[in-house]
Amino acid sequence: MTETNTTASSVSSALVSLSWKENYLQLLDQTLLPETILYLDLNHINEIWEAISQMKVRGAPAIGIAAAFGVYLGVRDHEATKEDDLINKKELDNRVNEAADYLATSRPTAVNLFWALDRIRARAAKDANDQQTTYEAMKANILHEAKLIQQEDEETCRLIGEHALTLMQDGMGVLTHCNAGGLATARYGTALAPFYLAKDQGMDIKVFADETRPVLQGARLTAFELQQAGVDVTLICDNMAGYVMSKGMVQAVIVGTDRVAANGDVANKIGTYSVAVLAKAHGIPFYVACPLSTIDLNTPTGEQIPIEERGEHEITAAFGKRTAPKDIKVFNPAFDVTPHEYVTAIITEKGIVRPSYLENLPKLFD
Amino acid sequence: MTETNTTASSVSSALVSLSWKENYLQLLDQTLLPETILYLDLNHINEIWEAISQMKVRGAPAIGIAAAFGVYLGVRDHEATKEDDLINKKELDNRVNEAADYLATSRPTAVNLFWALDRIRARAAKDANDQQTTYEAMKANILHEAKLIQQEDEETCRLIGEHALTLMQDGMGVLTHCNAGGLATARYGTALAPFYLAKDQGMDIKVFADETRPVLQGARLTAFELQQAGVDVTLICDNMAGYVMSKGMVQAVIVGTDRVAANGDVANKIGTYSVAVLAKAHGIPFYVACPLSTIDLNTPTGEQIPIEERGEHEITAAFGKRTAPKDIKVFNPAFDVTPHEYVTAIITEKGIVRPSYLENLPKLFD
Repeated sequence: MTETNTTASSVSSALVSLSWKENYLQLLDQTLLPETILYLDLNHINEIWEAISQMKVRGAPAIGIAAAFGVYLGVRDHEATKEDDLINKKELDNRVNEAADYLATSRPTAVNLFWALDRIRARAAKDANDQQTTYEAMKANILHEAKLIQQEDEETCRLIGEHALTLMQDGMGVLTHCNAGGLATARYGTALAPFYLAKDQGMDIKVFADETRPVLQGARLTAFELQQAGVDVTLICDNMAGYVMSKGMVQAVIVGTDRVAANGDVANKIGTYSVAVLAKAHGIPFYVACPLSTIDLNTPTGEQIPIEERGEHEITAAFGKRTAPKDIKVFNPAFDVTPHEYVTAIITEKGIVRPSYLENLPKLFD
Repeated sequence: MTETNTTASSVSSALVSLSWKENYLQLLDQTLLPETILYLDLNHINEIWEAISQMKVRGAPAIGIAAAFGVYLGVRDHEATKEDDLINKKELDNRVNEAADYLATSRPTAVNLFWALDRIRARAAKDANDQQTTYEAMKANILHEAKLIQQEDEETCRLIGEHALTLMQDGMGVLTHCNAGGLATARYGTALAPFYLAKDQGMDIKVFADETRPVLQGARLTAFELQQAGVDVTLICDNMAGYVMSKGMVQAVIVGTDRVAANGDVANKIGTYSVAVLAKAHGIPFYVACPLSTIDLNTPTGEQIPIEERGEHEITAAFGKRTAPKDIKVFNPAFDVTPHEYVTAIITEKGIVRPSYLENLPKLFD
């Protein structure tokens, strides 16, 4: 592993969470943001495992992409030693499964991780059994599939951004919460995608980023990646959102989501629900941006989405200094559910869905 | 100055912001909370000046009380050297004014500071001109007046607490924002007063304290002083208030205020407005607790109350560590105004006022 280290202030172009460089994966170490921009050159599967495990790469799509390239790195040096190419391919297929099994242990609960690994496994299994595919072609296809996953994610995010941008006008103020940005995906992000596209098109959108306590993804990631890309972004504390709305500084809210239920209820980072209620009280539209893969028609309503409660440390001493009394009782839900009646529209790669979500969400999957 | 130092975990009784000890002022150093409980024994006027200037004492009423005792410390060692007691009293009066002038420079914008100093000046001036008052009595009256200011503040807060408590029931959850507590006053506080009285009466009230970004008065002061007094308090991030309300964990909100306009608009710490909007959306009453001195009938509406904007540092690096990108644009209003239509009632030492505030607030001053 080699490191390319720059300080935050010396970089002006948009950040890229990960990119394939001929024969290794270059990955932005997100644990050091926003103080330091460090790109890691990952040449070995165990380096990918560590990067995922230590959350150097985060965001469901980005984790899946890293893992897919990780499988390729795990089999890259395998060689065809037998005369029978079918046997060589069988060996390679076994190595693919070993690599995928290993990478699956890096973040045991990450659904996108398993999805991406299974897609690579399926590609290899298909080629291994296909008489027309050579050993070399099979190996090349593994890398190709990883690249495809990345390209498709970028395309999905770009389409979400294009649809979202039709809801915005030049000069508008738009508020976002947490980080649903390019750092979590191949590029663009979901909720942040329209801001990147607007910037490219010379449109002026003033973004307000909630800092998003307790873990400050808004301050550390959203404000940072938009600033790096030259987007007009202003950082505020979460409790300033209502004030900013009341002063007419914001004309829309857009957020990402971890899961959308069949009725349009939306689970997202804690504080999203408060923002939605405030938006409604001020007559401001509240948009949710997400790929189709986030919409779970098997979950009837938000009631069925479990809300993780996390430890007190994030609230009492998250930033290297104790800021609350010892042994204080803390309530720290990591997510909340915004009921569908607060959601003006859900923006996907297939277009914009409006209520009734119960009727209109299934049409996306036709 | 001597110091009495205890660690937070070893103290179980309620904290007292300041108390007069025969011939010196004992003052809790609030800059060290919640990590360390340090009581300072202040014997000299310049120590009082420093304590106010360095915000070791904070909260408008507490500052005023400290300053009043400070004047006494400034004249305590003055002696009657002339034969004519009227001349001695005139000298003492001059010294009172010198002391008050000096203390007035400790926090130039604190209205309560000037009010308390003027009250001491007036007492001394009256005695100086009163033939019946001896030099010794005049000096004793200065100390007595300072004690009176403290007693009256405690009594005001106790009455506010008693009225507020009539709006609460056993087992209730009540949310508060920022710190309007005993640390800011002689005792009890305003918004926190009912919680202390409830505790004394064996009533169970579950308090939720917003941490109150950016300066975290809720985490560092409110959660701390209630914990020390044995009140059931739970610390949450500001963006969790809506979630807590939606889950039925809170049946009322109570906050303090910096100024109430004639129409009932209420200025308070940033984030108060968001809490008020959320409370209304959940059908939860939103109460404001304050002494009559906070109600300013000369300010017609909240529009006329200036909102101070503070520097970026509080948001980008408040936890001892930079948590936001360098050179990020920040918006940091320190206060907001909650329009009167969100205010269910205003609780004062003279009782509970409900809308129309324009009609009912003036009656308090009859």
